[in-house]
Amino acid sequence: MRTLYHYTLCPFSRKIRLIMTEKKLDFDLEHEKFWEKREEFLLMNPAGQVPIFVDLNGTLVADSYAIGEYLEETYPDKQFIAGSPATRAEIRRLVAWFDDKFSREVSLPLMFEKTLRRYLREAGPTNSTAIRSAKAAIHLHLQYISWLVDRRKWLAGDDLSLADLAAAAHLSVVDYLGDVPWDDYEPAKEWYMRLKSRPGFRNLLTDRLPGIPSSSHYAELDF
Amino acid sequence: MRTLYHYTLCPFSRKIRLIMTEKKLDFDLEHEKFWEKREEFLLMNPAGQVPIFVDLNGTLVADSYAIGEYLEETYPDKQFIAGSPATRAEIRRLVAWFDDKFSREVSLPLMFEKTLRRYLREAGPTNSTAIRSAKAAIHLHLQYISWLVDRRKWLAGDDLSLADLAAAAHLSVVDYLGDVPWDDYEPAKEWYMRLKSRPGFRNLLTDRLPGIPSSSHYAELDF
Repeated sequence: MRTLYHYTLCPFSRKIRLIMTEKKLDFDLEHEKFWEKREEFLLMNPAGQVPIFVDLNGTLVADSYAIGEYLEETYPDKQFIAGSPATRAEIRRLVAWFDDKFSREVSLPLMFEKTLRRYLREAGPTNSTAIRSAKAAIHLHLQYISWLVDRRKWLAGDDLSLADLAAAAHLSVVDYLGDVPWDDYEPAKEWYMRLKSRPGFRNLLTDRLPGIPSSSHYAELDF
Repeated sequence: MRTLYHYTLCPFSRKIRLIMTEKKLDFDLEHEKFWEKREEFLLMNPAGQVPIFVDLNGTLVADSYAIGEYLEETYPDKQFIAGSPATRAEIRRLVAWFDDKFSREVSLPLMFEKTLRRYLREAGPTNSTAIRSAKAAIHLHLQYISWLVDRRKWLAGDDLSLADLAAAAHLSVVDYLGDVPWDDYEPAKEWYMRLKSRPGFRNLLTDRLPGIPSSSHYAELDF
């Protein structure tokens, strides 16, 4: 069976879970406590990060950028980086927007402060300035999503693409933690509701992290 | 003419310059002071980052991941993400290693502290802890490069790939600033010398940033 090593609230792992479910690929999930740095895990990915994907033929792919492109090339029946060269470039620009900019400004600081910090010895007390900055930074991103979906059906154009899956993966982590001010951004909320009702999202919505409850509306399709 | 908006010591811009020269594509360089956030620039890339690429037909591509994949698809005569699916995945894993991990731990903090900080009002005094951390972190990366090229001709396998170009782009920035302890890592140094003598590198080696001199060996092919 295909295997994905992941962490429940890792946005990059969630992006790959969404791609695989949308492509109708079966896979087992292995929850990896990557901060424990077990030896077999570091041998699979010396960067010490999830996700790591192992395909049916044993091919091992580490890093969510590499896995996303690998799945797109290896399982092309349903594509999420499709269209003209310009459209494909637009999809990848937006994937980078969320995987790079949004993660740096919003999703990773919140995930770190609210979940990872409690597993890490010597990580020290919660940095409330980092939480405040992340919660301030998310507004610009929700504004940008609203601006895009006011003009396009999906983030990168007429079709659902990897850009939507990447963005939704990051937002789902922040939404689990209750830090998305949806009500101020109706178009973004409507776009996220459309994604939430897709089959690929169901698995994410049943995820729970011991000791860290999800926001009350996290699993609601209509929130 | 094709145009690349770049910043002299931006590793991501340098990666694209290397790809284009290796692919023998002519292009004009436009130096973008991205920190000044001029309006036309933000319209081209609302993320406010370089590089941005404009192709002959006017197609605009922002973000170095998107540009790299775009060039690979649009100009496939000479390829840098080639081989089996497993090899392509290995190339992209290593690109992400340098564009994500190395940049976060080493090249971006050094570039920020030693160059950008002087252009930014209110950025405050140099953070010498950040510089020390980056200079400590680089050892693990040079060790890893040495380990890889002890086993393979190039970083991802038998052929020069985007992994080598990405890694060399980041290292060239750190080397300009004089912070690569090459002498402790002979295999990595030998690999970098091979890259330095390629035609694509010549342009990078003549770059100079006003007020910030390069290290004495920066342009030496044999150092």
